[in-house]
Amino acid sequence: MTMAGRRRAARVRVGRLRQGRFATRGDSVAVEEPLEVRLEVPDGRDVREHPVSVTMRTPGDDFELAAGFLFTEGVVGDPAALAGVRYCRSVEPQEYNVVTASLRDPAAFDPSSLVRNFYVTSSCGVCGKASLEAVEVMGCRPVARGTLTIGEAEVRALPGRLRAAQRVFDRTGGIHAAGLFDASGGVTVVREDVGRHNAVDKVVGFLVLSRELPGSDRGLVVSGRSSFEILQKAAMAGFPMVVAVGAPSSLAVDFARRFDMTLVGFANRGGYNVYSGSERIGGLPGARAADAG
Amino acid sequence: MTMAGRRRAARVRVGRLRQGRFATRGDSVAVEEPLEVRLEVPDGRDVREHPVSVTMRTPGDDFELAAGFLFTEGVVGDPAALAGVRYCRSVEPQEYNVVTASLRDPAAFDPSSLVRNFYVTSSCGVCGKASLEAVEVMGCRPVARGTLTIGEAEVRALPGRLRAAQRVFDRTGGIHAAGLFDASGGVTVVREDVGRHNAVDKVVGFLVLSRELPGSDRGLVVSGRSSFEILQKAAMAGFPMVVAVGAPSSLAVDFARRFDMTLVGFANRGGYNVYSGSERIGGLPGARAADAG
Repeated sequence: MTMAGRRRAARVRVGRLRQGRFATRGDSVAVEEPLEVRLEVPDGRDVREHPVSVTMRTPGDDFELAAGFLFTEGVVGDPAALAGVRYCRSVEPQEYNVVTASLRDPAAFDPSSLVRNFYVTSSCGVCGKASLEAVEVMGCRPVARGTLTIGEAEVRALPGRLRAAQRVFDRTGGIHAAGLFDASGGVTVVREDVGRHNAVDKVVGFLVLSRELPGSDRGLVVSGRSSFEILQKAAMAGFPMVVAVGAPSSLAVDFARRFDMTLVGFANRGGYNVYSGSERIGGLPGARAADAG
Repeated sequence: MTMAGRRRAARVRVGRLRQGRFATRGDSVAVEEPLEVRLEVPDGRDVREHPVSVTMRTPGDDFELAAGFLFTEGVVGDPAALAGVRYCRSVEPQEYNVVTASLRDPAAFDPSSLVRNFYVTSSCGVCGKASLEAVEVMGCRPVARGTLTIGEAEVRALPGRLRAAQRVFDRTGGIHAAGLFDASGGVTVVREDVGRHNAVDKVVGFLVLSRELPGSDRGLVVSGRSSFEILQKAAMAGFPMVVAVGAPSSLAVDFARRFDMTLVGFANRGGYNVYSGSERIGGLPGARAADAG
């Protein structure tokens, strides 16, 4: 049972109706299992353990997921304060579904973030503008300018390169992906998850654990749509650019413009939409305006 | 500004690259704005207000979204205890982003549910099985048998009927939908949202507010993938059947089998996969086994 929980795809029996025929056969589905994240914080000579979250995720890259979540949600402000991530030892039977991250510096932990992410209120109510201000309070800053540019044809190639690296999608047809790209258009650190946000957290968590943040010279490519939360996670990691295969939400567009990010949507081999920051894309044919905004 | 927050699609300027040409033009994106839900609970002669959640959602059907969320997440156990839902009056400027639901019976409110949804722990850790048990604790029961059957061709028609009713998708290409269907295959109560779960909550919330729960004689059709949470919400509403255009997760399959639900995935005009409960689909060609499970 122990390692079973870490499979990314599971076999199921399925009745398949196609072309007027119905037959039962085996098929693969993307695994969805809960992951609990706990945080150990030094407290004088003692250590206190804080429950942080339970997320439904696809097993694999669990340490990256935990590290990325803790950082992009502002629970741990300084990634360098993270001493390590491990599966919780005291859990029996060990299902590899509980992860403990430990901090070396208690000052990097913001306990209010545990409440803030789930419940933000103010007497003036909530709105998109207040949401953008809230992420500034938690440490989101406009991304660095001039650190990443990429050719227009390379942007068109990104979705195909992301897709080519998706191992679990091939088998299940039902899983999101996120990956890093650089100025040459190469796609690396591709991570898959049933949750769009988790895939991004895994990618950011890779950079957290490898001490490569901020990701100012890299962009994020995602298989789905872009929303406020995707942009927030990208901005926390310092990515100047987000390329999405799907559509953006209004707040994703607002976010990108406010934080000087380049946001591309509906990307495929034939073209894409640029919602913000087109100056980072080189060689756009007949481009006049520096920015679509 | 007041009603602006309630638009479902917003106009933005976008640089569009297609067929080797780049031009700036106007386009529509799905609106994403936070919705805060509060719950007023009678407390003796007084009334106590509890903060419940902040969700990123597409404006519209906000009362349904709030009512559906409160019920499907187990915050309010008995939908009949809900006295009403309104926009919070004390909020200035009024952005229609704060909704207050009021209970007539305090016994219907489970304060522990506010913690439970975000943080579930036990000494034995978490796993898919524990997650299924947790929803039983919050009131999920196996759905009624024998109340809904639908012909195999009608199932194939559901995605098209859902899509035909999607108003915001037409303009934005980036929004999820959920709807109800009955034994005749008719699709009603179609709701759209940038969040998959929100679209389902809006549909269930419609039934909560119209006092039509449980939905034992109806099924749920969704535009995206099916996951644990989608199945949980459907089961809470009593739907015996979930038809998804996208793939299921492993836990969605486990959930459907445990709670006697029919789960269909990859549905389109040409066919679909049946992961559980094929006995509710009539006329499957050459079907022998009663169930794929």
